Parts: sequence; structure tokens; C-alpha cells
Amino acid sequence: MAGHNFLFVPGPSNVPNRILRAMAVPMEDHRSVKFPALTQEILAGLKRVFKTESAAPIVFPSSGTGCWEAALTNCLNPGDQILASRFGQFSHLWCDMGRRLGFDMNIIEVEWGEGAPVEGYRSALAADVQHQIKAVLVCQNETATGVTSDILAIRQVLEDLGHPALLFVDSVSALGSIDFRMDEWKVDICVAGSQKGLMLPAGMGITCVSQKALQAAQNSRHPRCYFDYLDMVKSNGTGYFPYTPSIPMLYGLREALVMLEEEGLENVFARHHYLAEGVRAAVTQGWKLSLCAKAPQWYSDSVSAIVVPAGFNAAEVIERAYRRYNLALGAGLSKVAGKVFRIGHLGDLNEVMLMGAIAGAEMAMLDCGIPVTPGSGVAAATQFWCTHEAPVGLGAGA
Amino acid sequence: MAGHNFLFVPGPSNVPNRILRAMAVPMEDHRSVKFPALTQEILAGLKRVFKTESAAPIVFPSSGTGCWEAALTNCLNPGDQILASRFGQFSHLWCDMGRRLGFDMNIIEVEWGEGAPVEGYRSALAADVQHQIKAVLVCQNETATGVTSDILAIRQVLEDLGHPALLFVDSVSALGSIDFRMDEWKVDICVAGSQKGLMLPAGMGITCVSQKALQAAQNSRHPRCYFDYLDMVKSNGTGYFPYTPSIPMLYGLREALVMLEEEGLENVFARHHYLAEGVRAAVTQGWKLSLCAKAPQWYSDSVSAIVVPAGFNAAEVIERAYRRYNLALGAGLSKVAGKVFRIGHLGDLNEVMLMGAIAGAEMAMLDCGIPVTPGSGVAAATQFWCTHEAPVGLGAGA
Amino acid sequence: MAGHNFLFVPGPSNVPNRILRAMAVPMEDHRSVKFPALTQEILAGLKRVFKTESAAPIVFPSSGTGCWEAALTNCLNPGDQILASRFGQFSHLWCDMGRRLGFDMNIIEVEWGEGAPVEGYRSALAADVQHQIKAVLVCQNETATGVTSDILAIRQVLEDLGHPALLFVDSVSALGSIDFRMDEWKVDICVAGSQKGLMLPAGMGITCVSQKALQAAQNSRHPRCYFDYLDMVKSNGTGYFPYTPSIPMLYGLREALVMLEEEGLENVFARHHYLAEGVRAAVTQGWKLSLCAKAPQWYSDSVSAIVVPAGFNAAEVIERAYRRYNLALGAGLSKVAGKVFRIGHLGDLNEVMLMGAIAGAEMAMLDCGIPVTPGSGVAAATQFWCTHEAPVGLGAGA
Amino acid sequence: MAGHNFLFVPGPSNVPNRILRAMAVPMEDHRSVKFPALTQEILAGLKRVFKTESAAPIVFPSSGTGCWEAALTNCLNPGDQILASRFGQFSHLWCDMGRRLGFDMNIIEVEWGEGAPVEGYRSALAADVQHQIKAVLVCQNETATGVTSDILAIRQVLEDLGHPALLFVDSVSALGSIDFRMDEWKVDICVAGSQKGLMLPAGMGITCVSQKALQAAQNSRHPRCYFDYLDMVKSNGTGYFPYTPSIPMLYGLREALVMLEEEGLENVFARHHYLAEGVRAAVTQGWKLSLCAKAPQWYSDSVSAIVVPAGFNAAEVIERAYRRYNLALGAGLSKVAGKVFRIGHLGDLNEVMLMGAIAGAEMAMLDCGIPVTPGSGVAAATQFWCTHEAPVGLGAGA
Repeated sequence: MAGHNFLFVPGPSNVPNRILRAMAVPMEDHRSVKFPALTQEILAGLKRVFKTESAAPIVFPSSGTGCWEAALTNCLNPGDQILASRFGQFSHLWCDMGRRLGFDMNIIEVEWGEGAPVEGYRSALAADVQHQIKAVLVCQNETATGVTSDILAIRQVLEDLGHPALLFVDSVSALGSIDFRMDEWKVDICVAGSQKGLMLPAGMGITCVSQKALQAAQNSRHPRCYFDYLDMVKSNGTGYFPYTPSIPMLYGLREALVMLEEEGLENVFARHHYLAEGVRAAVTQGWKLSLCAKAPQWYSDSVSAIVVPAGFNAAEVIERAYRRYNLALGAGLSKVAGKVFRIGHLGDLNEVMLMGAIAGAEMAMLDCGIPVTPGSGVAAATQFWCTHEAPVGLGAGA
Repeated sequence: MAGHNFLFVPGPSNVPNRILRAMAVPMEDHRSVKFPALTQEILAGLKRVFKTESAAPIVFPSSGTGCWEAALTNCLNPGDQILASRFGQFSHLWCDMGRRLGFDMNIIEVEWGEGAPVEGYRSALAADVQHQIKAVLVCQNETATGVTSDILAIRQVLEDLGHPALLFVDSVSALGSIDFRMDEWKVDICVAGSQKGLMLPAGMGITCVSQKALQAAQNSRHPRCYFDYLDMVKSNGTGYFPYTPSIPMLYGLREALVMLEEEGLENVFARHHYLAEGVRAAVTQGWKLSLCAKAPQWYSDSVSAIVVPAGFNAAEVIERAYRRYNLALGAGLSKVAGKVFRIGHLGDLNEVMLMGAIAGAEMAMLDCGIPVTPGSGVAAATQFWCTHEAPVGLGAGA
Repeated sequence: MAGHNFLFVPGPSNVPNRILRAMAVPMEDHRSVKFPALTQEILAGLKRVFKTESAAPIVFPSSGTGCWEAALTNCLNPGDQILASRFGQFSHLWCDMGRRLGFDMNIIEVEWGEGAPVEGYRSALAADVQHQIKAVLVCQNETATGVTSDILAIRQVLEDLGHPALLFVDSVSALGSIDFRMDEWKVDICVAGSQKGLMLPAGMGITCVSQKALQAAQNSRHPRCYFDYLDMVKSNGTGYFPYTPSIPMLYGLREALVMLEEEGLENVFARHHYLAEGVRAAVTQGWKLSLCAKAPQWYSDSVSAIVVPAGFNAAEVIERAYRRYNLALGAGLSKVAGKVFRIGHLGDLNEVMLMGAIAGAEMAMLDCGIPVTPGSGVAAATQFWCTHEAPVGLGAGA
Repeated sequence: MAGHNFLFVPGPSNVPNRILRAMAVPMEDHRSVKFPALTQEILAGLKRVFKTESAAPIVFPSSGTGCWEAALTNCLNPGDQILASRFGQFSHLWCDMGRRLGFDMNIIEVEWGEGAPVEGYRSALAADVQHQIKAVLVCQNETATGVTSDILAIRQVLEDLGHPALLFVDSVSALGSIDFRMDEWKVDICVAGSQKGLMLPAGMGITCVSQKALQAAQNSRHPRCYFDYLDMVKSNGTGYFPYTPSIPMLYGLREALVMLEEEGLENVFARHHYLAEGVRAAVTQGWKLSLCAKAPQWYSDSVSAIVVPAGFNAAEVIERAYRRYNLALGAGLSKVAGKVFRIGHLGDLNEVMLMGAIAGAEMAMLDCGIPVTPGSGVAAATQFWCTHEAPVGLGAGA
């Protein structure tokens, strides 16, 4: 098909040309005397992205899913109790992984469209006077529904109750797009991936492990080897890796970290919010449609799940957009399959790219018979973006 | 700035990733035994693009400007009379080059916004009973004003009058986007470049020379060497070049030719027309603005020049779009500087890319105080594209 | 440093420019309607590389190490007995992983420089009349010592004894370089990686699983999730992946498979043998040094470990080659650290590249005081290559 | 063919991966407000490479041949007398171009293998008491024979005689490899290209024009337009170009200039000399063959032309090297066709790369029956490189 594909799934996000070029390197010896400088530069940069001084960032050759598994198998013992909540496909999958790995999952069910239930966590933890719950899992940004949760509030619950459970956060579709604070929120393990806010291809699991979690890893008897934190931390300490790392991904990550620092992490978050607000204006004010996220407190700045009107099939919109307009929208998954389509608005993005996505989604909806007013989405986004001050990364001061 | 730049100047056009990758090759020996296969594949492909059996395509390491000069210096003698018309910056520049090179320029002045004046050519040629006019220059697509001319009509004038002048056509911003027919229109020299419909970076002058023109080159006494057609044709005949060619550009051109053939040249033209119609709908029905092209007969399918309302400065719109929205629009040149901005819609393009350009231009105009209705351009383009059958390259049958 | 680095570690191998370019693609939706065609093409190609009709190739976002773990955790139950042999760092590491994961490791110790001890396997298996041994591990090509083992002989032992244990083979540094036959040798799991004979960056674990092994996976109670074969096979069956795959690696793998097929897999093996023979001539006849591999039956066609004379430190040679000549040689690992340096000769390679490595290693040895005759390595390799018929991939018939 | 091609023609030279990546950029608007910064950075960098404060560097979309033409057509008048010398194919071609363009060529014939005849120039200029000679042409590095001439000596002749002729120097295969000093040597026009010491693909003519030459251009009546210096200088003064430049080549050039500065220009020259000495040791001491260059004073540090023994055809060696060993050697041109093959040793190069070329050439010669001692070339180069201190770019101090 002519022209370039517009990629608006919520990951993989668009890899900037600058990063693609940084990755197109010849291979090199990962045991050379020069190699540690690269490792150290990357780990230092990741610490700034995770906002941590003391925790250890780790990169695995894996997807983010691997980091979920690493969190569970490194720091817990077989059969340990885990408290989690489920309100979308990705929070579900982590819970399901816990079950499959043999943990005792204590799952708070929440309606899809809402986020992590602070009071639900409080009740469950308060009831656990024996401190049988060893880990608390929270999904910071549920990619399936476009819902962001309040991690600090969960931490506050643990503090209030003096509960010693480890706090594990899935920040896969938040890190680098939505604020995350490892140290300030006392997160024990943060799970992320390369293909979202970090603007890389998939294939690198990026995680961060607190000293408390590393201590727990010392005592864990759960079988593991590939995803062993201690092997990694030890090897990284010398600037190397326990097994062959991906050279292109390391150079790509280095470039991504430079880009984030050039823009400024807070400016990156501000840009994501600004862009997301424009998309939400298009959806709610322009198209008069609903977001899957039930209330503004849950709105995600990295992805919006848009509910098509009753009687229409969102999957048809997505297929039409893809086949006819070369526009990739995110599918509704599981419970919301056919009911929503998603626009990922994370990573290396600006207004005009999003205008293409909005206009393309509109054409696809119209072709499927959904009665939106032509141009209404773009008009509402225009109204937002032309009347609010642009963040640094989007031509502020132009 | 975040996100990718939207490039909508009428050249260089967007180089598809596929071509960028084809170009990222290591260098090789341009005198090797394997090299001629590449040369021959490219020249054969170019013949299909020029629609010629008998003429010789030539690629120079130069811009298209170099091919203008080659046409004049290879086939004419010092002081020869040339008939041309001027109705925009590029038709002007070719005329001016003729003057600077010492030819006797006979220039028909035409209002900018109109195209090549068939009757003007007829009068001038009819008056030239001595056949002093040795070459007739026509600009097929005036990039400055978005105006396409009727080359066949000029050929018909020459035929009607039995005038033996050579017919030189500037098809820089038409070839590969708008139909061009070397043999059928008996064009003697067609001048083109790499950075428009052929989807490559600038740096390769692409031209095609009829046997009649090569015959004239045999007799030309005009000093020339670098741009000598005969050197090129002789060397190309063995599969080589008289001086070192650009390896990346040759591989890029090979890939571009494959892409054009995969889509089908007629489908490529149909796609350009379909996309241009959507843009024109946005401009005239959505924004209620005028095109620089005075009448539909002149509308160019590769570029639209849009007149801003009196009292506004198009240069401000362009600068705003660039600095604030990362959108590159084409400037008004010379006589129309400040009066028009241009949207190039040529090369590797689809509707959603253009939607970004339309929405971005709209935001820039609004920011500059130009009273267009938000969303109106996109709405009009939507209306066109959703109600007309898509060409093959744009998801027809999806 | 000026000029390009010569990479002669035994992995990552040199990624050909053609593959680097194939990988430099924009991201795309891994859940699109078009995506399954890519998955299916790759899996079909891998089957030809593994020489299997019935087994299932699987690609994990991981290093080859991950595939070791997958083999153990998918098809065995906690505490199961495993028979293995240890004769180098990589056979050691797999044994060690088995121990760490809680299996009952029955390890045959072999002197480094020899390969898998067929009679040792026979004795151990013959003694296991209760069939407590559930899996037999063999390292086809020990990368640390440059030793290749006879997998078919091990299979024959199992057949002779009617022992039902699964046969797991580490072919990481053999697959795509040295013959491997999944079906003919009745291998149950073959473990490989992307960064060796498949000419890709590291980051993709490539494995192949027999129907018998998949059956065992149905019955395994070992905790696992990320590396679950059944999830993969089920998802791949629809053309998708259970979690986000790396788009560049998939396109790179597709290109690698095309390259292997263009050359012809048997020709690839012949080329590796021919190149290895030249290297061995340089080492033994030219330099008068010894290989770590004790006898020709063990000689590896993908990597040579070269023993430096007593009193010299191979690590100094490696560092000198790297810092002074921009040549990366492989280090001696563990037991042979300081005693050997390695030349990887696998993947996309030809004689002249190897000549650079040979001459460079020679200069580095001379600089370190090792008394080799200048030019002797190249002379011996020349003698071999100029007097033996070249395989197809190296200009046969030129 | 397997493995990478070894490119040792004396241009195009190997483009470093770093530059290939710098070139793989999306297109951009060459008339944008940000563009002049790029132009200015490049022109400032080129001034340092040309070693000039006052002259104007110019880059044309052309090959170096175009810059030859520009020199002649910008600064001279039709029929002007030019003094030049001819001692190889490239000095010949420039002379021939002068003749074709209608100048009155006064050519000193010199045996191929020698360089510019200082006394010949002196005699001719001394005889020209009327100062009819308007330009003196010298080829600094004759690529066909591997001969470097003494430009300063020619300048001294002009100074001695007080002759006002302009001094034009072809430094195509010297600039960036062999010292060149625009200001100190009072060169009026230096002609260079992108594909040699500047490590880029062909396609950019790089030239430098003194103020005296620009003054001459004001008065020249020779027809020209594409290659007009004054258009370029005027447009560059604003940061733009008179016609569309090649975006990839500009970014590639920027990176090349950064690389040259990182290494240090004098270190780059020292590296070329050091590498060339090793090659010459291989040829003369190892292979016992002769260089085309008649005496050490003419030895070129960027290319060596090697004379094969009588009775052998160098073209066969070249074809054998190419087809059988994937090694591209430079052909003998014109008078020395079949008599010499050439090894280019310019640009981004190190010892190990050259060892491949030396060993490969040796194998090809042996295959053609030329009686060189196997390994002798590498042995002699080893002897040189291992006993002389390495320059900065080659691991000095390792």
C-alpha cells in the first residue's frame, strides 16, 4: 500500500528514525574491554527514568511479560500469597501468570474501565494480620481499557497498615509516558518494556528492583535461572551481561534515553497529557462517543479505548482502518472485544500524527456506518490544541 | 521536536522506508563485472516510466537543474532561438538559464496560475517560417503554482505546422505522478529529477533523450563535457558510467522502479489524482479558499498552491506550521511569495498522511488568524475520499 | 578507531548488511490481519533449517539461554533425573542451570577438548533400567573449546537401549553452520539462538520441539509461563504470538532464512567446513600451535580455540588484538581462560575476512612475544584455499 | 556471495557504518528556517579540511568531474590558454575536458609513473611573458598510477616568476587523505569529491574557490549555469542552495567532517602514510613486485598501482579477486590497462582490512600463475606495522 502505515496501537509505538539509525550498527564483542562503558551509561540513564537512586535497573532479552515472571519468581517462594486486582486484559494476564506459577492469588475484581481499587487493597491488607500476603501487584496503566491507577495511594495503604508486602507495579505502558517514581513511591519492582514510552522495538524487558526486593531474592527458593536478578546485578556490576545481549537494542536504548533527557522527562509527561487531552476532546466532544475509562480520574495519557455505539462492531472499524486507510488502531481485547477500538498515544508523537489517526478513525467509522460528524474529531482536537499552551516537545514558544 | 516531521513540500517528497533501506548499502566497485546488470535493469525500468521504446534515459549525478542545462547545451548551438513560456518560478528559471547560456530566448509571458499557452505557441511557431526556432520548452507541471499543462497539445501544434523544432519538456514534478508519454507525444527531451514522483532524495538528474535529440547532439558545437549525452549513452551501452555514479542512488532508483511497477504506473497516476481531489475539496469546499491554479484544466495532481485571504501572510502560516506543528509546507516563490502556501501531494502518499497535513495547515492558519472553520478541510476531504472508489494503491476493495 | 572492527568472536557473528537493512523497518501492528503471513513464512523456513517435518519451531524473545530453560521447564517434572556431559563452559552452564532449577543432574565429566562421550552415555543409560532418566542433554558444538559432538551416535545409543528419555540438543553455535537433523536424529528439543549461524543480532531464542516433547509438556507440572511451549504453539498456529514479538528480529530472520536457502543449506555447511579447514591449516601448519580440540573428530567448523604456548597469556593477545588492531577474538572461558583465544568462523564469512583475522591474530601474538613466523598463518591458509575447490558460496567456478 | 565484499578500489572508498547511518534520514524541507544551521556547519567544517580561512568551499550535486568543469567554466574565458601536465588517466581526462570545452591546452607530457614536472611548468610559464596562460592545472594525486605531486613546488614556480595564472588543483583522491593546504599554497581552485578521503558515496562534488578565483568568475564570459560559483556562494551565504541539495549527502558529509576532526586531520594523514607504507612493503619486499610510481618521491599514500610481471595480465588478477574472493581491486586504466592492478588505501581503513586485501590479492595472483611467495605480502606488512609506532587512529598506545 502507498504511503506509510500510521501505527496507533498502544505498543509497539513508533520507533523514531533517530533510534532506528542508532540500532543499525554492526555487531560487536559483548565481552570487550570497551563494552562496560555502554552498559553503565544505559543503567545510569534508566535510573533517572525510574527515578531511583538505590534500586537496580535490569534489562532482559525478553518482552515485558518476562519481567512479570521475573518479579514473581525472584522475590517470592512457591505458594506465597499475592494480592492483586483485575480490571483489564493485562492486569488479568499478570494475575493468571501468578496462578499458573503456583502462587496463591488473592484477586480483587474491578469493573473494566476503573482502576486499582485503593479501598479494596486496604481491606484485604488490613485483614491480613499475619502478613501472609508477600506481594501486592498493581497495574499502573491498563493498556486494554486506557485506565491509569494511583500507585502512590496503594503505597500509602501499605504504609498506613505497616504491611511489609513487596509492591510490584506493572508500568509497561506508563514508564516514559506517565510519571513513575520508584523511590518516592517505594516500589519494589517496576516492570516495563522497550516498545512503549521508550520508543524501541519489542524484545527488551526493562525492570527495576529495589534493595528490599533484591534481599527477598536472596531468600527465594522459587526455581529460576534465565530471569535471575542476582546473576544480572552481579554481571552488570562489572559492565557485562550473563548471556549475550542484543547490541542493537542496547544502542537503541542508549539513544532513547538521550532523547528523553533532551526533552526532559517532565516535559515528556506533559506532552503525553497534552496530546491525550486532544484525543479525548476528539472522542467525547467531537464524535460524542464514550471512553472505556469510566471517569476522568482513570483517563490514561498513553492510550484511549473508545467505545463504539451499540450495534456496531469495533473490530470492523479496526479492520477497515487497517485495510483501507493503512491505519493501525488497537483492538478491543477479551471482555471488550468488538466494543472498543484503541488509539495509542504514547512515545514519539505530535499533534499532526494524531490528527491523521483521528481523521482516519473517523473515515473508518463512517465507512462502517457509525454516525459521527465528518471532521468533528479533528475540530475538537484543534480547539483543544490551538487554545492550550504547547509543551516543550511540541514547539512551545514557536 | 517530538514525533516525525510531516513533509509536504512539493519535493523532496517522502522517501519510503523501503527505499531508504535499499540505499543503505556498502559501496561497491562501479567498474566490476557484475555492475552492468544493475545499470541495465535501471535503464530498462526508466524506459517504462518515460513510456518510450526508442529514447535513451540518462541519469546524471546532479539535480534536475543539471538536466535543464544538459538539454540546452547538448542539442543546440550557441545563439540558437528557443521558444518558451513563463508562468511560474520554475518555468521562469529554465527560461533564465537559456538566457544566461546565451540562447536567443523567445518567451511567452502567461499569468501565473495558468499553464502553457497552446495558442501562443502556435502563433510564435507559425510566424517562424524560417524555422529559426530550434527548440520549444514547456513545463509540464509548474511546481510554484500547482499548474499542469497539456504537452500533447503543444506537440500537436508542431505537427500541425510541420515545425521541426525539438520539444523539451520539464516533467520534474510530474514524472511518476502525472502521466507522461515520451514516444506518443514525440517529446525530444524530458527533464526530471529523483526527489519527486520517483521518491528518492535529490541528487540524481533523470532525463530522457530521443533519437532525434541525440542526432542533434552530434551536431552541437555548444561547449559541454560533464553533461554530455553522447558520453553517457556510449558508456551506459556497456553498462557503466563515464564517471563514478552514486551507488546508493542507483539502488534506491532500482527499488523505486520496482515499487512503481508493483503498484502499476496508471494506478500511481490514479492515486495522485484521487489524493489531489481530496486536497482540493479541503481547500475549496472546506476552507473556502482559492487555489493559485485559475481553472480546473490547470489543476495539478502533484501539488496545490493555496491562496491565503488578502491581508494575511502565507509565509507566517508556513513558519507557524513548521515551528509549532512540525509540518513542512511549501513556500510561495517569487511573484506569489507571501500569497500562497503549497501542499505537495506527490510520491509515496496516502489519505491519512494528507489528513495530517490538512489538519496541521488548518491549525497553523487558525493560529495566524485566518478564519477557516476548524475541521472543515478534513470534513471535505473525508466527504470526497469516503464517497469515491479508492485506487489500487490505497486499499481498493478493502 | 579507524576502519571497521573485525568481529571474530564465536557469536554474535557478523550481521550481513542485507539483514541489517531488512531489520531497519518501522514498527507495525503485530495483531494485524496481515501479520500471520510473516509468522508462517518464518516458521516454515525454520522447519527447513531444523530439517523437520513434524516438530514445531518456536522463537522466543530471549537469548539461547532462555531456550535451555524452556527445554527443562516445559518437558520435565520437578526433580526429574537428567543425564548430561560437561566438556566446556557452555555444556557446563546448561548442567548448572539444571541443578539450579532443581533437577537431579547426572553429569559425565569429560576432559575439555573432547566431545560428548558416546560410551559414557551408553553406560549411564544402560544402568538406568527403571528409566528414571527423563532427558539426555548433549551440546552439539561446545563454543568454548571448538568441539563438535556426534548427535546421531547418542541417538543410536538411546535406540540401542530402547531408552525413552527425551533427547535435548544444544545447537546454538551449530545450527545454520554445521549439519543438524531434527527428524533423522529424532531430537526432541533443539536449542539455538539468533546470533550465530543465523546471522542476526542476539535477542531471539530459536528452538524446535518434537511432538513427543510437546506431549511431555502437556504432562509437566514444572512452573513456567513466559517460556511455555504450548502457549507459543497455540498462538503461532493462528499466526500470532502470545506477547509482543520484535518486529525487526522477525524481518531479519526472514531475510536470513532467504539467504540460507539461496546459498543452499548443504552449501552453507560445506562453506563453513572449507573456511574452518583454512583456519586450522593456519593454526597448526602455519603457526605450529595446537587447537584446544584434541583430535580431528572433534574439530568444530564454526569456532577454533587456539592454545597459546606455555608461558604466554592468551588474554593479552586478545586485548592487544582488540585495542591495537580493532580485531575481536574470542576469550578463553573458565578452565581455559588465558590459555586459548578463539576465532569464530561462523555465519556470513569468506576467506578474505578470515585472512584479516589470521593476519591480525598473528600481529597480536608477535606483539605479545609469541614466536610465530610472520605471514605463516596466511601462507598455510592460502595453501589450503588455493588448492581446494571452493564451495558455492565462495565463488566456485569463478 | 558469502561474507562482505572487500572494497579496495581507490574510490568509492568504504563508507563507515557511522556515515551510512547518518545518511539514512527522512527527507526534510531544504528551505526551512532550521536548514541554514546545517549548511553553515558543513561549510565551516570544509574550510578546516581545505585549510583555508578566506576561500569558499562549495558542494555541487555532481561527481568530482563536475568540479573540474566548474573550475574551467567559471574562471576562464572561451579560448583561454591553460597549462597542464598529463601523467595518468585522470590528469589526462582533465586536459581532455579543457580541450573539449574549447580552451587552448598547453600540455606537458610526462611518463606515467612520475608526477607533475616542476621544471616543465617553470619552462612553460617562464616562456609565457605575455601571461597568456590563465590557469595552471595540477593533479595532486594521480589515481591511475598512484603518484602524488608537489603542489607547493608549482606554487613556488608561479611565485618565482611572478606569473598571475590561477592555480587549479585536482585533489580528488588526496583531500582528506594526503595533506592539502589551500591558503598556504595559494591554490585558487581545489577540486575534490565525496567518495574518497571524505568517506561518502559518490554524488557530491566538493570544491574550494579562492577570492581571486571568485573575482575571475565575475569577469568570465564562459557560458555556465548549473555549476555557477557565484550563484552558489550567494545562496550559501544565506544558508541555502540554488537548487535542491541531497539531504542524505549533507548529513553524511557533516558526520564525515566530525569523524575527521575527532581523529585529527594530521593524524588522518599520518594513518594514511603508515598504512601505505605497509602496503608498499608487501608489494616490494614481500611480493618483489614494482609499483607503477617510479620513485619514492611519487609514492601515493592513498593508492598503490602494482605492476604485474611481464607475461601476466593484471585484468585477470582483478577478475579472479572479484569473482573468486569477493575482493574489488582497482583496474589499470588506459595506458596501464592489463599491466597494473591497484589497491586503494584511503578513507576509513585499518591494518587488518588491508591484510585482507593483501592476502586476497596474493591468492588471486597465485591462482593466475604469478609466482609470489604465499604469505610474503602479509609478512612484509606485518614486519612494517609491528615495528613502527601506530598513529592515533590505529590504536596508538594500546
